[in-house]
Amino acid sequence: MTDRTVYFVSDGTGITAETFGNSILAQFEIKPRHVRRPFIDSAEKAHAVVQEINEVGLREGRRPIVFATLVDREVLKVVREHCQGRVMDMFGTFIEPLEDEFSIKSNHRVGRFSNVAQSQEYHDRIEAINFSLAHDDGQSSKNLDTADVILVGVSRCGKTPTSLYLAMQHGIKAANYPLIPEDFERRKLPAPLLPHKRKCFGLTIDPERLASIRNERRPGSKYADVLNCRYEVNEAEAMMKREGISWLSSTHKSIEEIATTILRDIRPDRLIY
Amino acid sequence: MTDRTVYFVSDGTGITAETFGNSILAQFEIKPRHVRRPFIDSAEKAHAVVQEINEVGLREGRRPIVFATLVDREVLKVVREHCQGRVMDMFGTFIEPLEDEFSIKSNHRVGRFSNVAQSQEYHDRIEAINFSLAHDDGQSSKNLDTADVILVGVSRCGKTPTSLYLAMQHGIKAANYPLIPEDFERRKLPAPLLPHKRKCFGLTIDPERLASIRNERRPGSKYADVLNCRYEVNEAEAMMKREGISWLSSTHKSIEEIATTILRDIRPDRLIY
Repeated sequence: MTDRTVYFVSDGTGITAETFGNSILAQFEIKPRHVRRPFIDSAEKAHAVVQEINEVGLREGRRPIVFATLVDREVLKVVREHCQGRVMDMFGTFIEPLEDEFSIKSNHRVGRFSNVAQSQEYHDRIEAINFSLAHDDGQSSKNLDTADVILVGVSRCGKTPTSLYLAMQHGIKAANYPLIPEDFERRKLPAPLLPHKRKCFGLTIDPERLASIRNERRPGSKYADVLNCRYEVNEAEAMMKREGISWLSSTHKSIEEIATTILRDIRPDRLIY
Repeated sequence: MTDRTVYFVSDGTGITAETFGNSILAQFEIKPRHVRRPFIDSAEKAHAVVQEINEVGLREGRRPIVFATLVDREVLKVVREHCQGRVMDMFGTFIEPLEDEFSIKSNHRVGRFSNVAQSQEYHDRIEAINFSLAHDDGQSSKNLDTADVILVGVSRCGKTPTSLYLAMQHGIKAANYPLIPEDFERRKLPAPLLPHKRKCFGLTIDPERLASIRNERRPGSKYADVLNCRYEVNEAEAMMKREGISWLSSTHKSIEEIATTILRDIRPDRLIY
C-alpha cells in the first residue's frame, strides 16, 4: 500500500505534525509516501499546497492523509474548505476543548519554538550540548562535578548519541566516559569517575551486535572480534555490578528510549518541571 | 494559573505526548506544572498514575489536563474509566478514523521507536551523528564530499548545535566550518570548502547577540567585543554574498527552525521520503 501519500502540513517547522503523525502511522502495517510541507503561513501558500494534495489524490485514486498543525486561522480555513485529503486537524481537535477547560481563548501563536530562541530553557539546552560535546568519550575530566549524568560503557555501545540526545532534547549535561581493556585489567573504574560514581549510568550491549557495529569501523580487527567484544562486555557488566552502577542494554533500544529511561532513573526531578 | 497540573502519560517514551502537548499548551497564556509519566505499560502502573492524577486534582481543586499517547488497550481502559483528569486521548482520537480510512485494523504497537533500533533509518541517523561530530568546527576536511550540507559562519553563531540536530533528527550528514578573521583578510572561503560551495549554507547572527554569547565564554576579550563581532559578521555576510551562498540569521530562531529551513532549501528531496 505505497499508493497512498501522507502529508505533514504546518505553519511552523512541522516537527510536531511529523512526530505525532509518525506515531499514529506506526500503528498500521502500511508504507505510505511521506511529504513534509513546513512554514505554510499564508493563504497563498495554503492554496498551493492544497492544490498539490488534491492533484496527488486524483492521480493516486486515494485521498492523501494530511496531518496538520495549523495555528494560523486563515491557513486553516483554506485547508478545511478546499482540501480533498483526509485532514487530521491536530490543533483544532484539542485546542477548542481546552479553551473551555481553561476558560480563556488560545492565542493562535505558531509553533512550539516561537520566541524560545532567547529563553532560559533554550539557553540551557545549548549549554548542555556544548558540555556534552566537550565531555564526549572521556575527552575532559574537568567540571565532571557539574555533569547531570556520566554515561559509562565499552566503546561503541551508544554513549555518544545518547549523551547528545539527552542534552539536545532535555537540557541534561551528559558526559560520557569509555570503559577500556586497561580498566578491566586494573579491575577499577577510571580514576576521574570515582568521586562521581553516584551519577554514573551504564550502557551495555549484546556482544554480537557490538561486533557488527565495530566491524563497520575497523573490519577484521581484534577490536571488532566477537570474542573480544564478549570479553569487554562481560567485564564491563561485572564492573558496573561491583561498583553499584545501574545500567541498561542499548541493543534493542533507540536513543530516545535509552534517554527517557535514564532520565526517569537518575533525574526523576526532571520529570516534573 | 500555576495551580493546574498537566500530565504527559504514555506507554512509550512519552516524547510524542510531550511534544504535541507542549505545542497545544503554547497556545495558552498559562504556566501549568508539567509531569512526565513514561513507560506506563501495565494496568498496575496505570492504576498508580491515575490515583496520583486524581489526588492532585482534589488537592488543587482543578482537574489536571492529561495528554495521553496510550496504545496498550488495557492501560487505556484504566485511564478512560478511572481518571478524573481532562484526558486528551491523542491516539484514540485519530487512530479509529484511520482504521476506517485504511480499511485495516491498527496493531496497537507501542511508540514511534519500537524495533527501530536496528532499522536502516536508525542506522543512518547514528552514522550521521558520528559524521557531524567528526566534522564539527572544521575538525576534518576529509570526506566533505559525502556531507549533505556544510554549515559556515563565524564562531558561536549556532553551527554546532544545528549540525547535530540535523543529524539526529533528520539523518543529515551536516559538517560545519568556521569563517575566521584570516579568511576575511584573504577575502576567500577556506580552501577545503571551495570544491563544495554548492552545499554550503551560511548562518549569521545579530552582532550584539553574538557579543553577549561570546562574553559568556571569554569575558572582556577582543573576540567578544561588540565592534569585533560587528566586523566579523559584516565580513562573513559579504563573503557569503560574493560566493553565492544562501544564509539565514539564527538570532531569533531555534535550532529546530533553522534546521527545518535548511532542509527545505538545500535538500528538498528530504521533504519527501
